[in-house]
Amino acid sequence: MYSVTSPSELHVESNLESSRPFLTWQRIIDWAQEHYRCRTFTKDERIPARSGLLYLVQRGAVRLVGSAQVTATNSGTVRATRQLQEEAFLGFVGAGQPFEIVAQSPFTLQSYAHVDQTTVIWLYWHDLDNWPHFRREVLDAFRYQHQRKLLWLSTLGQRRTIDQLLGFLTLLIEEFGEPCESGYCLPWSLTHAQIGSAIGSTRVTVTRLMGKLRQKGLIRTDGDNLICLPADAILKHHQ
Amino acid sequence: MYSVTSPSELHVESNLESSRPFLTWQRIIDWAQEHYRCRTFTKDERIPARSGLLYLVQRGAVRLVGSAQVTATNSGTVRATRQLQEEAFLGFVGAGQPFEIVAQSPFTLQSYAHVDQTTVIWLYWHDLDNWPHFRREVLDAFRYQHQRKLLWLSTLGQRRTIDQLLGFLTLLIEEFGEPCESGYCLPWSLTHAQIGSAIGSTRVTVTRLMGKLRQKGLIRTDGDNLICLPADAILKHHQ
Repeated sequence: MYSVTSPSELHVESNLESSRPFLTWQRIIDWAQEHYRCRTFTKDERIPARSGLLYLVQRGAVRLVGSAQVTATNSGTVRATRQLQEEAFLGFVGAGQPFEIVAQSPFTLQSYAHVDQTTVIWLYWHDLDNWPHFRREVLDAFRYQHQRKLLWLSTLGQRRTIDQLLGFLTLLIEEFGEPCESGYCLPWSLTHAQIGSAIGSTRVTVTRLMGKLRQKGLIRTDGDNLICLPADAILKHHQ
Repeated sequence: MYSVTSPSELHVESNLESSRPFLTWQRIIDWAQEHYRCRTFTKDERIPARSGLLYLVQRGAVRLVGSAQVTATNSGTVRATRQLQEEAFLGFVGAGQPFEIVAQSPFTLQSYAHVDQTTVIWLYWHDLDNWPHFRREVLDAFRYQHQRKLLWLSTLGQRRTIDQLLGFLTLLIEEFGEPCESGYCLPWSLTHAQIGSAIGSTRVTVTRLMGKLRQKGLIRTDGDNLICLPADAILKHHQ
């Protein structure tokens, strides 16, 4: 049932850098530097992104998180406490990819540098008037990100948490994975709490289910605690 | 914490029809009819959409569903049975809005007419070469849909199912709701099984939690079993 498309092939479709004429991208980087429109962040530093602007990841990786202040609990105090805890991991934005932050109360989106030395460029949408072809690329990138989120929602619609977890990891590694000894590996670490927040589960449950998936040989973790999909697990799905 | 933006104001941002020059839209409808590129479906009829094409909802509403064939269960038989059951509701596409179907094994997306007399136009992307301004609108619409999905994922990241449920209903009604006596009402019915599939829960749990939300006055259901957000519940969130 599993696609034969390797993560690296998929990557080509999503990776703006590979399809983008190198000159445009270089020109935008130069322009951003000239106009003080880029900044470098350290790991887990919050990127002060505002709604209505467009951001491009020049280097590194950005982590999007969202929090929902809708709750069926009426008590204000309880709500305030829970808000602080419930930041959901919404995905990565890799180098060459755009992102934006939506401000839609009662929901808040935020962006963090996921790795050290993450450089982000920011633009107004009308800045792209100079590069109409590039604007189309940015919009196509959002279209692609939208498609990935529909797949993500499909896996969250599964009833069993272990299936949600495996589907979630598969999607992430398909999109961002890099070839490694045992298959494909997510190049960045992700805590069990972050994974839990993405699938609406807890750190404890994720730790337990990751153990199960490892036992079944469906995932592996390498020395640096990075998550891998073993090549033979991918083959298993084909049968 | 709740936004003062009313659902109808939000709607303006998302509703292509209102911002689109009427003539372009009419020209596309005429073109589609001339070229046999539109078809009308009955309620719950499957729309045979293919990956790589672009679809526009001319009238009615489309329901997107997804299924994930990733499962941690090794047995082939069990997996096959479960596949049939697990179609996750991924959202509505209203009149004037575009959609597309991604084929990305092991995930499958499908589209259904959600109401009777739903008319859908289909195009190749290069057909839009004739209407470059319209292509930009379509891409902007996908960008908007992507933003909504990020909010949707934010609410699914909440731990308690009742919060996920309320967040999910709030997002749907914010986007598609119509003013009614008691607040804002989702104009289409949605079964508890469909809601359950969207938030990774079961019909039984949704029925129980909908009862709780009604008791707390956070939602209402009108005569036709349509779900409403009462105006005073919205006010409550502001406090």
